Amino acid sequence: MADGDDDVPLILTWDDASSGLLEEDENGAGNHDVVNNVTIPASGASDPRAQNSLQQSWEMNFQEAAIYLQEGENNDKFFTHPRSAHALSAYLFAHSHLFYVVELLTAVLLMLLSLSEAPAVPFLRLDVYVHATLELLALVMVAFELCMKLRWLGFHTFIRHKRTMVKTSVLFIQFIEAIVVLVRQTSHLRVTRALRPIFLVDCRYCGAVRRNLRQIFQSLPPFIDILLLLLFFMVIFAILGFCLFSANTADHYFSTLENSIVSLFVLLTTANFPDVMMPAYSKNRWSCIFFIVYLSIELYFIMNLLLAVVFDTFNGVEKMKFKSLLLHKRSAIEHAFQLLVSRQRPDGVSLKQFDGLMRFYHPRMTPRDRFLTFKALNHSGAPMLSLQDFYKFYEVIGLKWKARRSGEHWFDDLPRTALLIFKGINLLVKSKAFQYAMYLVVAVNGIWILVETNMLNDGISWTRVVPWSYIIFLTIYGIEVLLKITGLGPITYFSSGWNLFDFSVTVFAFLGLIALAFDMEPFYFIVVLRPLQLLRLFKIKQRYRNVLDTMFELFPRMASLGLTLIIFYYSFAIVGMEFFADVIYPNCCDNSTVAASYRQINVTTGNRTELQEGYYYLNNFNNILSSFVTLFELTVVNNWYITMEGVTSQTTHWSRLYFMTFYIVTMVVMTIIVAFILDAFVFRMNYSRKNREPLDDPEDEKGIVFETEVSQTEALQTLDFYKHTLGVTNLTSLQDMCVALERSGTSLVFLGRRSRTKSDLSMKMYEEEIQEWYEEYSRTNLQTDGTFHRELDSPDAGATNSIN
Amino acid sequence: MADGDDDVPLILTWDDASSGLLEEDENGAGNHDVVNNVTIPASGASDPRAQNSLQQSWEMNFQEAAIYLQEGENNDKFFTHPRSAHALSAYLFAHSHLFYVVELLTAVLLMLLSLSEAPAVPFLRLDVYVHATLELLALVMVAFELCMKLRWLGFHTFIRHKRTMVKTSVLFIQFIEAIVVLVRQTSHLRVTRALRPIFLVDCRYCGAVRRNLRQIFQSLPPFIDILLLLLFFMVIFAILGFCLFSANTADHYFSTLENSIVSLFVLLTTANFPDVMMPAYSKNRWSCIFFIVYLSIELYFIMNLLLAVVFDTFNGVEKMKFKSLLLHKRSAIEHAFQLLVSRQRPDGVSLKQFDGLMRFYHPRMTPRDRFLTFKALNHSGAPMLSLQDFYKFYEVIGLKWKARRSGEHWFDDLPRTALLIFKGINLLVKSKAFQYAMYLVVAVNGIWILVETNMLNDGISWTRVVPWSYIIFLTIYGIEVLLKITGLGPITYFSSGWNLFDFSVTVFAFLGLIALAFDMEPFYFIVVLRPLQLLRLFKIKQRYRNVLDTMFELFPRMASLGLTLIIFYYSFAIVGMEFFADVIYPNCCDNSTVAASYRQINVTTGNRTELQEGYYYLNNFNNILSSFVTLFELTVVNNWYITMEGVTSQTTHWSRLYFMTFYIVTMVVMTIIVAFILDAFVFRMNYSRKNREPLDDPEDEKGIVFETEVSQTEALQTLDFYKHTLGVTNLTSLQDMCVALERSGTSLVFLGRRSRTKSDLSMKMYEEEIQEWYEEYSRTNLQTDGTFHRELDSPDAGATNSIN
Repeated sequence: MADGDDDVPLILTWDDASSGLLEEDENGAGNHDVVNNVTIPASGASDPRAQNSLQQSWEMNFQEAAIYLQEGENNDKFFTHPRSAHALSAYLFAHSHLFYVVELLTAVLLMLLSLSEAPAVPFLRLDVYVHATLELLALVMVAFELCMKLRWLGFHTFIRHKRTMVKTSVLFIQFIEAIVVLVRQTSHLRVTRALRPIFLVDCRYCGAVRRNLRQIFQSLPPFIDILLLLLFFMVIFAILGFCLFSANTADHYFSTLENSIVSLFVLLTTANFPDVMMPAYSKNRWSCIFFIVYLSIELYFIMNLLLAVVFDTFNGVEKMKFKSLLLHKRSAIEHAFQLLVSRQRPDGVSLKQFDGLMRFYHPRMTPRDRFLTFKALNHSGAPMLSLQDFYKFYEVIGLKWKARRSGEHWFDDLPRTALLIFKGINLLVKSKAFQYAMYLVVAVNGIWILVETNMLNDGISWTRVVPWSYIIFLTIYGIEVLLKITGLGPITYFSSGWNLFDFSVTVFAFLGLIALAFDMEPFYFIVVLRPLQLLRLFKIKQRYRNVLDTMFELFPRMASLGLTLIIFYYSFAIVGMEFFADVIYPNCCDNSTVAASYRQINVTTGNRTELQEGYYYLNNFNNILSSFVTLFELTVVNNWYITMEGVTSQTTHWSRLYFMTFYIVTMVVMTIIVAFILDAFVFRMNYSRKNREPLDDPEDEKGIVFETEVSQTEALQTLDFYKHTLGVTNLTSLQDMCVALERSGTSLVFLGRRSRTKSDLSMKMYEEEIQEWYEEYSRTNLQTDGTFHRELDSPDAGATNSIN
Repeated sequence: MADGDDDVPLILTWDDASSGLLEEDENGAGNHDVVNNVTIPASGASDPRAQNSLQQSWEMNFQEAAIYLQEGENNDKFFTHPRSAHALSAYLFAHSHLFYVVELLTAVLLMLLSLSEAPAVPFLRLDVYVHATLELLALVMVAFELCMKLRWLGFHTFIRHKRTMVKTSVLFIQFIEAIVVLVRQTSHLRVTRALRPIFLVDCRYCGAVRRNLRQIFQSLPPFIDILLLLLFFMVIFAILGFCLFSANTADHYFSTLENSIVSLFVLLTTANFPDVMMPAYSKNRWSCIFFIVYLSIELYFIMNLLLAVVFDTFNGVEKMKFKSLLLHKRSAIEHAFQLLVSRQRPDGVSLKQFDGLMRFYHPRMTPRDRFLTFKALNHSGAPMLSLQDFYKFYEVIGLKWKARRSGEHWFDDLPRTALLIFKGINLLVKSKAFQYAMYLVVAVNGIWILVETNMLNDGISWTRVVPWSYIIFLTIYGIEVLLKITGLGPITYFSSGWNLFDFSVTVFAFLGLIALAFDMEPFYFIVVLRPLQLLRLFKIKQRYRNVLDTMFELFPRMASLGLTLIIFYYSFAIVGMEFFADVIYPNCCDNSTVAASYRQINVTTGNRTELQEGYYYLNNFNNILSSFVTLFELTVVNNWYITMEGVTSQTTHWSRLYFMTFYIVTMVVMTIIVAFILDAFVFRMNYSRKNREPLDDPEDEKGIVFETEVSQTEALQTLDFYKHTLGVTNLTSLQDMCVALERSGTSLVFLGRRSRTKSDLSMKMYEEEIQEWYEEYSRTNLQTDGTFHRELDSPDAGATNSIN
């Protein structure tokens, strides 16, 4: 092998670690620089102690390089990089999955506590000392986590890290409050509970939520500007409306200036239209002009402008985010590269060092995969990876490696008769006729369900008798699934999202059948999912495939946006519960204008007594679940003023501030969601147009594919290298490869696959700009960080010095 | 001058005209080709008859070239180009402003007739024979217009022109119906009146509406696709909802499948939320999940997708439209150029020919401006315009020419004392301090109005006493306006939109003061416009200036979109009136679920009798004005189902189709409006980012500016040329120029200005692509229309032939 056993790292990491190395070395080689010592191969190579310490310092370097690369991947800033050996242990502890899970569970527990606290969900109510103790425990957990973080970051960096400081102060407040609750044995007004989501947001696993929040805050300045314009027009029209309509005593919407402003605020959401217009309209028909002009300006112009401004900002933010992420990754790669090169060969990373890195970066990767990843990176075919090769690290690292199959189908190795049968099934399920026949079945099924449901017009009654049509269609779907699985092979079948969808719908329908047959009432709802089969019809048209695929692609981001919304909901729900719990009940608001919606009376018509219900008393803040439903209703906006007026009539008119603030906050989040969907969709469309490729042919393999060819001699060499030079014992993966190579002949092609991410799309979209960014980046880096690059660019100088 | 008197047109236009020329020539030069005859300068130049006929054929060419250029400007297709002399006269008649105005008035009259027809607006009701006669007259006018068009287009083209054919058939139907009405002396069910807007859409002045409609239709296919997806989910959820909730007898929203579908359709607009959920929610709290999932998928995902798809299509359509317009103009210019060049010099247009063209193209342009436009086009400085020069025709043609002023201010020529005073005022009004002082005054005024209005909390009462604050602030604004006008000069002052706004608001406030002082009650509303002054505060921040300027720029397009919407409204209003007139009245719908909204009862509480009104009976289709208001309420969507259910309970449940169709149509138009605003705004933002220029510095001059320097000799030569060669008599503009030149010395720079249009912005945005388009265009033109370009590219061949 090309790697000498005694290569010395170009730079040594973690001062105290290397000083430990020095101390250890004092016995053997005296107090002079150990690095200089071992760079001279002839003198120090045979010394096993020096060899050992050298090995240790390499391990240190591998670990730090792996940490750099992880920081690059997670977009952690380098100023939180562990600087010493004891910081390292804290860092490793705070970056283990166990720690993450505990962090997440603690945060979730804290948030869930509100289910059992004071205005609790009835069946989850806990005693004060129980939930307060639980809270204290959770807070102690959080405190412990923060201590670990302090140990890793050091006091100075800890203070400078804004998010952590906010978290610390919130923790402090919550601690005091929890103790007060425990001492007084009763809950006081605890609005600060609204801050609990901060612990969740800070979790490692909630990075997407943090990103969303950041994006929301970045979009705020232009948003607020336009919002002011909106409010300004509102006030002007409120004055106008007050002047025009306050003379009409029947019109309570404009009776005072405050009422005018509130009415027009509600009108902005259209929730009180046309009711707000009616009293004025019945007096003078021309007064409708006022409302039409107001709505045209505010709703149809400025609100759209709001969206346009947010969309524009969003576009820019997305691009900048991608750029900074890309450059951060590049910088991480450069840092790692520097740690992996040796003094002897400062411009390349050998397999030995790469393997060492990967042991830390991806501990569970097999030696074979490490070797194949190295080969995939190694574009030039030289024995070492240059920095240029190494830049591709993040593109290659997620690949799943597999030897290219010699045959096409899974059944190619079966005996001839079986092969012919399976071949026939394969051809059948791939044929257009089969597909369209299935579409036809689905369509007939759809019509059948519609007709069947329509015939049950007087309400459904669950019976144990399973309709025969259900069994027939289910049999057809079952046969289809079986045919497809046998024809395509389970792996190919389940790798398509559409097939997965078919499969799960069919399985659900089958479960529903069992539920019906065995009369398991709570599972009846599964039966009802049958119409979802119809969704398959939308595969026929290309545009639907695009839209639905985009939908699936967007799903993770949508979910994180949903989580962000829930966090806002949580805070508002807590505040709502603290102030409005139990103020709403049937017939509560009889002195307000919305009394009818809260009324629950028995009306006697003739000799029949009927309960007339307004139902709105159900939209209350009596516990957190009710609050969430109420807040969702407020989000949807229609009739939200009934809830607002109800609460206001029972409390003070300052309560309106709560509802109006909530409306504006959801407006921001919703606008961001719209902007996000717009942006994602338009981006994908532009991408497919730019690259002139169909967005996805459902038959084609999707994703990113790398190819690497391995010859037999190479494989044996590698096996030998791993066995003897690195001393790895568990080499089954490599041995398997050698066996496969022996069977197939001289060489074998391995395919590395991964699914395509947004980052890959962005890379292609901004291809030209990326080059500019890189150039700009290396220019500024040369200016500000000249030393670093000098070391990297002229490595010989350093090496020569150490030899002289 | 370079132009020979006897240049012969390269091609002769309008066969019968040139054959007329031939006949006329038979006496003098015999039956041989007149063109060949006069191309030899030595032989035919002295013959006055040939000279005369030559002149006539030039005039013909000028006129046709002008028509080509007009067609290019208006985006009229060339296949409607007049092909003969009698077609020409019809063409000219059908393209005069008088004709346009009559066309427009006829169309408007036809539409306004619905104010007086059967369910008429009470005070505009006309007898059947009156409005039927009026209608017949208007239809005869339309028929006459169509005849003119037939004469101009010729029968063959007329048949091929789709829009005209539709108009003809609609006209035919309307004619028959009008006669039937006149004979029967009573109106029958005339749903076809909904087609009347077609006459308006076809008007020349409604080109913008036609463009909007085309854009809407182009966005339809992707829109419908996503709409189907939306409806599909709706049906699936309707089946689900029916299965889940139909057992609950209190829940009439899901009692039948049809009700389920209608409920979920209404829920799509959120109009019945949370009411639709409440019965199910009160029975089982978990049923809210059904509604939350439905709304999340439909409202927050698919509806946004709809916007995204329309926005994406819209983007593409806008670009394609710009491209085709650009290439059409280029083609028009090429056609015109070919008509303007002579056989002798086939690659250039001389001033003489350009002047001839302009006399037809812009009859009211002064000779000076024609000359200056020629100079502006003439980039190379050669005596002739090349085709490359001529390509810039449309950029140059709208310029307003003015000599560059020697001084900066309007008062520079005044005596010294006055000059100093005005100079002082000028500096004052331009100073930051003055501006901010005015902002302060406006802000104080705003607060004052708010406080004042708030103190009148028990309703406003109009008094003759004018509040003193009003007078003080008005005086300050008046002084400001005066100072600004004197300081900047009226022309500079009024050329800024913001100043115009200030001025008009101040004038209105003054009118309001007069109205108050003289107790003219109907004008009180002007007083109420005072708060509009506050809008000036938004000038302070750059983003607001951008937004408001964009608003003003968008206004014409918004207005045309509004007109488009009104046309849809009109058609729906007619249909609504035909079917639903007089079905809605107080207490009409007592057997429906929305009875409360239509109720009008006297409630006696204690000894006080009060009128309780539901008011919704006001939202009816009893006449066209009420219908419009009702349709606007349906557009805003909130509570629209109350109107729908009210009408449905009085008619059949098929009436719902009307309301649902209307909802979908307005959804299309509204989505287009959102897409348009988004597109326009993002476009402007991108433009300003790409060109790194502030969108508009309010102090700077905006728009496109061309400069042309004219020397004294040149001016005199031109004057001479116009006087003797062209024989123009009214040369004051040119003489003025000569006088000005004499005063200023050797030469004078003239500035041509026009405001920047969307087309100019697009030109800059798509700079690179435009070159590609041009190349592609000339390639395809060479292939399909080889002869034309051969003529153009190798003109010498033709010329040589004619001489030999």
